[in-house]
Amino acid sequence: MTAKSQKGWDGEPGELLRVREGFRLSDVDPDATPGYDGRKKHGQADLEAGEAQFDELQERLYAQSRVVPGSPSVLLVLQAMDTAGKGGIVRHVIGATDPQGIRLTAFKKPTPEELQHDFLWRIERALPGPGYIGVFDRSHYEDVLIGRVRALAPPEEIERRYDAINDFEKRVTDAGTRIVKVMLHISYEEQKTRLMERLERPEKHWKYNPGDVDERELWPAYMDAYQTVFERTSTAHAPWHVVPANAKWYARLAVQELLLEALEAIDPQWPAADFDVETEKARLAAT
Amino acid sequence: MTAKSQKGWDGEPGELLRVREGFRLSDVDPDATPGYDGRKKHGQADLEAGEAQFDELQERLYAQSRVVPGSPSVLLVLQAMDTAGKGGIVRHVIGATDPQGIRLTAFKKPTPEELQHDFLWRIERALPGPGYIGVFDRSHYEDVLIGRVRALAPPEEIERRYDAINDFEKRVTDAGTRIVKVMLHISYEEQKTRLMERLERPEKHWKYNPGDVDERELWPAYMDAYQTVFERTSTAHAPWHVVPANAKWYARLAVQELLLEALEAIDPQWPAADFDVETEKARLAAT
Repeated sequence: MTAKSQKGWDGEPGELLRVREGFRLSDVDPDATPGYDGRKKHGQADLEAGEAQFDELQERLYAQSRVVPGSPSVLLVLQAMDTAGKGGIVRHVIGATDPQGIRLTAFKKPTPEELQHDFLWRIERALPGPGYIGVFDRSHYEDVLIGRVRALAPPEEIERRYDAINDFEKRVTDAGTRIVKVMLHISYEEQKTRLMERLERPEKHWKYNPGDVDERELWPAYMDAYQTVFERTSTAHAPWHVVPANAKWYARLAVQELLLEALEAIDPQWPAADFDVETEKARLAAT
Repeated sequence: MTAKSQKGWDGEPGELLRVREGFRLSDVDPDATPGYDGRKKHGQADLEAGEAQFDELQERLYAQSRVVPGSPSVLLVLQAMDTAGKGGIVRHVIGATDPQGIRLTAFKKPTPEELQHDFLWRIERALPGPGYIGVFDRSHYEDVLIGRVRALAPPEEIERRYDAINDFEKRVTDAGTRIVKVMLHISYEEQKTRLMERLERPEKHWKYNPGDVDERELWPAYMDAYQTVFERTSTAHAPWHVVPANAKWYARLAVQELLLEALEAIDPQWPAADFDVETEKARLAAT
């Protein structure tokens, strides 16, 4: 089962979008659709086709974990500037599979209790157990993004965190979790368009916050902070992927494909019965 | 917006399926489809039609809660004998809306930590916050069902729990949560058929447990325990609904309808902007 062969991809997003040595965020075109032929109509059809595949792989992953101790899990880490489409990924990509196999956590501004602990404390508690697909809507990376841009911690503490993150993610992957790190990348102009849409539609007003405009002033500082994140934390065990996200359909398709690649690498199998099937049929028939 | 008028219902499930004074579980036909014309094909079409409605109401509920303090929430409590279709409800009814607005908890055998607390301790911690739709796959009712059938607690403790549950649910509803309690009701024979299907399909073996056959011997005791639950805990603030579930399509449609009725009773509104829209448009335009 190779997802690629069934679809409009002419390359693997896992390879094409991966942050490698020498990567520059400023070189990425947010309008691009790397590895895909670029037609929205086909993209939406492929997204639907991928749903069945995602759904079966998720169920296998879960089923395996119910029988085999220490089974693997998957963790999708989503980071992005506001309006980039994290919510749409959760809804349209993750939402296509069984809610019972998903562990979704949206990280907000830390609570007073969370602030009394190391920044990774709340992250650790939200990790998916065996067989689950965890989804982080924002994550520990906020602590080196807004944390750095708004100087929420001293520079030496921010500095310490990059290595702490790498050590943490190494331990998590060693314990059997495949981490898929994604930054959805939109342009400064696209964000303006999307915020304006929220202002123009009353049923979208609740998604708008006046602070969003103030944050735009800090856009270059955020891009710098992301660049540093990529340089310091795109590791062999947990590489980053930057997904151009001005075209929502492409971003969703690419993230679905990254998840499919991770699940295919795990290749979860329906577990064998740990009971004698014929005996059980006879016992059941007698009831 | 009345769901009923758009569909094949000729009665409201909230009324038709409600457990009232004098209710006898043994009078319910698990094959029946109360209030619906009984055609599976229409049922599936109506389920899809209801998804858009459910989705919009869920988003309104969530949106309102982001702006209005103390907003309401919904809690679906699902109880049933094994194979009755709780998982299918979660997947096909709940799974149709945004995962970000759902708080799903599957209650298993209590952990040692949970056992050190009152039986409602773990329940309290899983309650949905304002704006969320909580879903309990099994619940505090296990503590008066298997708890009673298998004598996991002394009779006087089981007895105490019914009143404790009513007090607890009263407090929860007073605090703004609409509780929708559902028992999916299948027949003894239907369970046998479904368990046999699991044994016949290797990709379903992981769902089968030899203990399932042993539990069947206790079927009458479970039916008695459910009857007592209904007599003691179907209250004005949190009534029970018994949903015939031999026909999966009917059970899903009925639970969707019960949720729609709960959401329509709340009638959540898109919240008004708490900022000046024109000012914000100007500020944004200047960036």
